[in-house]
Amino acid sequence: MSALAIGIDIGGTKVAGGVVDHAGRVLERARRDTPHRSMSPDVVENTIVEVVGELMSAVPAGGTQQVVAVGIGAAGFVGADRATVVFAPHLSWRHEPLRDALSRRVAVPIFVDNDANAAAWAEWRFGAGRGESHLVIVNLGTGIGGGFVIHGKVQRGRFGIAGEFGHMQVVPNGLRCECGNRGCWEQYASGNALVREARGLILARSPMASDLLVHVGGDAGALTGPLITSAAQAGDQTAIELLAEIGGWLGVGIANLAAAFDPGTFVVGGGVSAAGDLLLDPARETFRRQLPGRGYRPEADIVVAELGNEAGLIGAADLARIDLGSSG
Amino acid sequence: MSALAIGIDIGGTKVAGGVVDHAGRVLERARRDTPHRSMSPDVVENTIVEVVGELMSAVPAGGTQQVVAVGIGAAGFVGADRATVVFAPHLSWRHEPLRDALSRRVAVPIFVDNDANAAAWAEWRFGAGRGESHLVIVNLGTGIGGGFVIHGKVQRGRFGIAGEFGHMQVVPNGLRCECGNRGCWEQYASGNALVREARGLILARSPMASDLLVHVGGDAGALTGPLITSAAQAGDQTAIELLAEIGGWLGVGIANLAAAFDPGTFVVGGGVSAAGDLLLDPARETFRRQLPGRGYRPEADIVVAELGNEAGLIGAADLARIDLGSSG
Repeated sequence: MSALAIGIDIGGTKVAGGVVDHAGRVLERARRDTPHRSMSPDVVENTIVEVVGELMSAVPAGGTQQVVAVGIGAAGFVGADRATVVFAPHLSWRHEPLRDALSRRVAVPIFVDNDANAAAWAEWRFGAGRGESHLVIVNLGTGIGGGFVIHGKVQRGRFGIAGEFGHMQVVPNGLRCECGNRGCWEQYASGNALVREARGLILARSPMASDLLVHVGGDAGALTGPLITSAAQAGDQTAIELLAEIGGWLGVGIANLAAAFDPGTFVVGGGVSAAGDLLLDPARETFRRQLPGRGYRPEADIVVAELGNEAGLIGAADLARIDLGSSG
Repeated sequence: MSALAIGIDIGGTKVAGGVVDHAGRVLERARRDTPHRSMSPDVVENTIVEVVGELMSAVPAGGTQQVVAVGIGAAGFVGADRATVVFAPHLSWRHEPLRDALSRRVAVPIFVDNDANAAAWAEWRFGAGRGESHLVIVNLGTGIGGGFVIHGKVQRGRFGIAGEFGHMQVVPNGLRCECGNRGCWEQYASGNALVREARGLILARSPMASDLLVHVGGDAGALTGPLITSAAQAGDQTAIELLAEIGGWLGVGIANLAAAFDPGTFVVGGGVSAAGDLLLDPARETFRRQLPGRGYRPEADIVVAELGNEAGLIGAADLARIDLGSSG
């Protein structure tokens, strides 16, 4: 029997699940919208159980390949017990015993991790970070998720909460963040930041935004990150500038992380990374200008993630499969 | 024969050396002023060789205890080869082959490390960080040095340059730093920052600074960090406020590092840490206000270093002794 694992990536907007094999291939897929944060934790759990059930039933019973574990990658602070979401800036969880709640409803062992840790693991095992001894991942989605893999180990910190790069302050008294602070990096370099800035241009009735407004049929509220990215790819100058602004802030934070960690490679993932070099070239330029000792020291590569939106679920599944093996 | 090692700590203002035993005790001491950065690298090397010579001659030849290695802790970016100082914001070194240059003039093996890495190691082995699985040290001296020890290993990064926390940007377009950038953390939370702010008050002819000015006989240029600290300890309100301002910025940066690394303990060392809780209480207060997820997550302790000014030389010596053993 070949061991499969289900990975579930719970982000600010989507719950994405997949059946993943030992080589990181996604054999089956399922997804739902993330219940709004005003909903109780139960509602999110129901959604997860639904997705797991759908995926389980897609794997033929009695076949040569069976699902042995479920890995959850959650957009929140996961405790060192790998069971509890202690805090989630974009969800309603506070000290949520996610693993135990799900274990009562799912037949195989469950492992919980931070979504960006899971994505970092996937990119190191199967993606853009293969072979890198000191890898940092920066995931630009609703906010910024982060993770790092040093010498083949996910670094989770003393309390399990390492990698919350998005909540490093880059602007004193800056924009208010959902975490309760001000000036967090993710307020300047994330999908939310991109959409907020574009809508801001529209609300200011800037003629710079008129082409973007046409893209969304005159409804600023309908503007999304992917729409801005596709407009930029089609040559819209304003969309290109908006991505460059986000990219510049990305470079500032990456230079800070390079000063602290000195990794060999930064992998930039998450939805916004679909913009590719329209995002990364401005990031690289700012990074090179901000890096202390630049010109005298080796510099990290900044590359786009290879596993796209599926890094989180692939990594969560792979970590669960491996952790089951080492605990069994 | 019992193995001793010499540790040399090369900071922005002092070259401090000591003969250190296996328990981290300093048996002999020697020190010189750091040659000004306008001097050639040779001059710093001559100073190091002088200090080593003085310490060597203090250990009786043919005795039961002999010096087997020299460890250098340098206030600069040390390459992964542990031999080259690739860049030093406060010294004249650029790609300086420090180990080889010294090896020609010193009879025992030499190991080069970053001064704050050495201090982090010393505090983990013998000081305030004993037993901590995830330790971060923040050394406030001329600038800010940093280091971290995870599960008993100094983390040096992919290129050897990890821990340059002082050059993380905390203020966009902020104060110019010696590293060439703007807004670096060490421009707001270091000994230099403390003295600059105090002198600024004096130059602005603020009545708030009149007591401080008396302390230095009317000469603002004679003001030093230790003088400000002792004034604060004697109850001078302005000196207390200046330390609180530095401490507040210290807390901002520590919250950023906690978001990224999630250590269990921060050890604050370096000259400014002599101010103790006058510095650390404001740092703790800001840290608690800035930490994302505060109230829902375990929080790191912020404690003062135990080995004081000698952490760097003790750590450099101990790392050299241990590295000699593992390479021999």
